Amino acid sequence: MTQETIAMSRHPVVDGATRVVGIVGHPIAQVRAPEVWTGLFHLHGLNMLCLPYHVVPADLPTFFAGMRRMQNLAGMIVTIPHKPASVDLVDKLTDRARIVRSVNFIGIRPDGSWLGDIVDGIGFVENLKTNGADPAGRRTLLVGTGGVGTAIAFALAEAGVSELVLYDRDSERSEGLAQRLAALGWPARAGAPDPAGFELVVNASPVGMRDDDPLPVDAARIAPGSIVADVIVHETELLRRAAAIGCRTIDGTGMMDHQLVAMAAHLGLGEHDFSAATAKRVAAAVRG
Amino acid sequence: MTQETIAMSRHPVVDGATRVVGIVGHPIAQVRAPEVWTGLFHLHGLNMLCLPYHVVPADLPTFFAGMRRMQNLAGMIVTIPHKPASVDLVDKLTDRARIVRSVNFIGIRPDGSWLGDIVDGIGFVENLKTNGADPAGRRTLLVGTGGVGTAIAFALAEAGVSELVLYDRDSERSEGLAQRLAALGWPARAGAPDPAGFELVVNASPVGMRDDDPLPVDAARIAPGSIVADVIVHETELLRRAAAIGCRTIDGTGMMDHQLVAMAAHLGLGEHDFSAATAKRVAAAVRG
Repeated sequence: MTQETIAMSRHPVVDGATRVVGIVGHPIAQVRAPEVWTGLFHLHGLNMLCLPYHVVPADLPTFFAGMRRMQNLAGMIVTIPHKPASVDLVDKLTDRARIVRSVNFIGIRPDGSWLGDIVDGIGFVENLKTNGADPAGRRTLLVGTGGVGTAIAFALAEAGVSELVLYDRDSERSEGLAQRLAALGWPARAGAPDPAGFELVVNASPVGMRDDDPLPVDAARIAPGSIVADVIVHETELLRRAAAIGCRTIDGTGMMDHQLVAMAAHLGLGEHDFSAATAKRVAAAVRG
Repeated sequence: MTQETIAMSRHPVVDGATRVVGIVGHPIAQVRAPEVWTGLFHLHGLNMLCLPYHVVPADLPTFFAGMRRMQNLAGMIVTIPHKPASVDLVDKLTDRARIVRSVNFIGIRPDGSWLGDIVDGIGFVENLKTNGADPAGRRTLLVGTGGVGTAIAFALAEAGVSELVLYDRDSERSEGLAQRLAALGWPARAGAPDPAGFELVVNASPVGMRDDDPLPVDAARIAPGSIVADVIVHETELLRRAAAIGCRTIDGTGMMDHQLVAMAAHLGLGEHDFSAATAKRVAAAVRG
């Protein structure tokens, strides 16, 4: 694929037959999905685009009721703060969305009903694998069990980690999640944020977004040679410290792009290339 | 403005901050508004686009309730068959929308309330004026008093026609409209579809859309030198016959483009060029 082709991808055509994938959030202006998805649709010659919908939490049920009447809606990406509330606003949930109690993508089935799925955990794990860090068989510490952390916990469990220790500042939250995972037969328990002895250390908390944040774990106790991953999309102090002692480090940048394939499958677009690599090239072209 | 600049207009960027003007209809795939408006927004460097919303009549109230919750909605164009129903689904009507009992554009006021307006009559009259056919002072026959015909009737009355005779196959409809116009002090009455003696003859009925349609008026009785206008967007048999006897003929092509200025005013974009001439160039570039 030539650079010229990618450069065209910022330029969708809109006409009366255009179909829409929405992304609903509050706030919304910061989301990357409209550029990336619209670029990919254009690249594949699809008359579709991804459009931001700015909706406040109290308005979500009424907004969704209205969007259900839009016949040219193809699907809906759900982002902060609407993921937990969307669980009760769809007609059916995938197993993982039901277990995680969170929805970040709504597919529209042939009968018009809405199917809620959660694919950010999958995106995180796929990103690890792409970076040569398959979590299968690894003793794993996960810090942060909010919405994203919960999704990642289930995805890591499904990916076959040998041990999963969960920590959250809100200990009820991490303990509750550990119990739910254990009840499903996964090797999960709540524990301290001590990275000593773990082969995979994951930060799924917001700690590290700001430069003056403390470290989410004691970096001095990270085992040299382990894998340290963060959901935050820039290189955090945690990752810098880990890299300095020879750990493989993976930031959150690729996590969203690795969800596109799963979302595209819901859109019935499985035959097209929605790989993270192509998404990354499209995003670069759009920004360029 | 160079050709290159216009050629770019088919290529909007979509991102998280994009604002939307919807167009709601059933069917919807045929509408031109998304291409024309999106091209104009792009031309003016506005992060906005015009998006089709395919909604069936029974779903309109629920759809509108949902769209009211979309904070980045800038306005909504209303097309067939939703114009009459929209009268009861907005918070306030312009005088002309209240009188015509039809809405084809919804503006969103600073307090979030919805203002319904009808500008297709204005677009029709502006198109006449641009073609050197100011209706002021002319004896006028209008055939067809459905939604568009009613809007045109009021716009012609406001534009100062000296006499306005209305005909509709459904005589109750044309007589009712004539009475409402007359009650407002306009020189209107119901009458036969006989063009003899009129200086301006307008077809606002669908008769002539198909090649095997009869003529909406008896072409042999059109006064040579009169003006004959049609809402239909191609050259109808009526216009061909009229042209053959030396009448000035005007088809419906420019009617939509002449509504853009009024709609742009509702969008708070009055400082930008939304003229019919620019819209026409943008549309040509998009199609090209």
